[in-house]
Amino acid sequence: MGQTNSNFTDLHDAGRLDIVHECIVSSLFLSHGLRRDVRFHAILNGLPNFFLHLEIDGQSFYDVRTDMETWQKILKKVLAGKSHPGIKLYKSGFEPLLKTKIPNRQIYVLEEDGEDITDIEIPDNSLFILGDHVGLPKKVENFSLRFGKKISLGKTPYLAASCITIINYILDQQTKLGS
Amino acid sequence: MGQTNSNFTDLHDAGRLDIVHECIVSSLFLSHGLRRDVRFHAILNGLPNFFLHLEIDGQSFYDVRTDMETWQKILKKVLAGKSHPGIKLYKSGFEPLLKTKIPNRQIYVLEEDGEDITDIEIPDNSLFILGDHVGLPKKVENFSLRFGKKISLGKTPYLAASCITIINYILDQQTKLGS
Repeated sequence: MGQTNSNFTDLHDAGRLDIVHECIVSSLFLSHGLRRDVRFHAILNGLPNFFLHLEIDGQSFYDVRTDMETWQKILKKVLAGKSHPGIKLYKSGFEPLLKTKIPNRQIYVLEEDGEDITDIEIPDNSLFILGDHVGLPKKVENFSLRFGKKISLGKTPYLAASCITIINYILDQQTKLGS
Repeated sequence: MGQTNSNFTDLHDAGRLDIVHECIVSSLFLSHGLRRDVRFHAILNGLPNFFLHLEIDGQSFYDVRTDMETWQKILKKVLAGKSHPGIKLYKSGFEPLLKTKIPNRQIYVLEEDGEDITDIEIPDNSLFILGDHVGLPKKVENFSLRFGKKISLGKTPYLAASCITIINYILDQQTKLGS
């Protein structure tokens, strides 16, 4: 999903960029603050440019709010080739991105039949792979599982953005217990 | 917060109705489904009509998606006095609403210094009270604590909508363990 040019007036109709927006908010935003230790990646595979890799670095991005109007403007700008602090856009698909992330990192793939996340101690610097509302393409899932481990949030079918909020909460809880 | 008429073009600038939208989504939406056992209430205390109580009943509402454009239309319509399945609008403030909810129900007030939610067994049919980005007004907090108990999601300052997602996740986990 995810339209790959800036020719849109509505995030929902732009290949569900509204879901990308929701996931950005749940990955990076706290109340009156940002998660500086999170990096968010989305692979946009919609028309017309197919694979684009959108990266948002919590450490360096600013000048943002959570609402859709703001993100409609930012995504339009970035997809038109302009810059925004902390946001990068690469011409790259999923496999090259994942390959750069493999060294020294635990990779988790969210699947209903995975091991329950609350039974696992998640290492720092882990990477979590989630699909959109349709789910991960089979090829992406198979490639991910060569390097990663299936984990599950249970049987409730959460929205992608809700999954990210829950993972962040569980990591916050683990950090608290470990500190 | 929450503008109380339909004279707006942007949820963010309508007294942060964008936060109400985010909270509606995290309360009621699953992937490709709705939480039929949830009822969402918001007290809008913005200009020009002051106190309005917006109620959304997961059991009877339909014809909805999660995106902001959709909710901008629905909230405009409802605030203009028109109807939408499952959504009601009352001229009422917080105290009368809470009073109708007290009988046979555990009431929780989200506060950082409350008891950790993971240490509590939450009864069915509980009610959770959350503030907006500014926090609960002192009067509302004091009134709520006459009937409710402080609970906490920890020291991380989550967005209001993220708090709701986390509470729903914890309730899902408890249901799973209890079943």
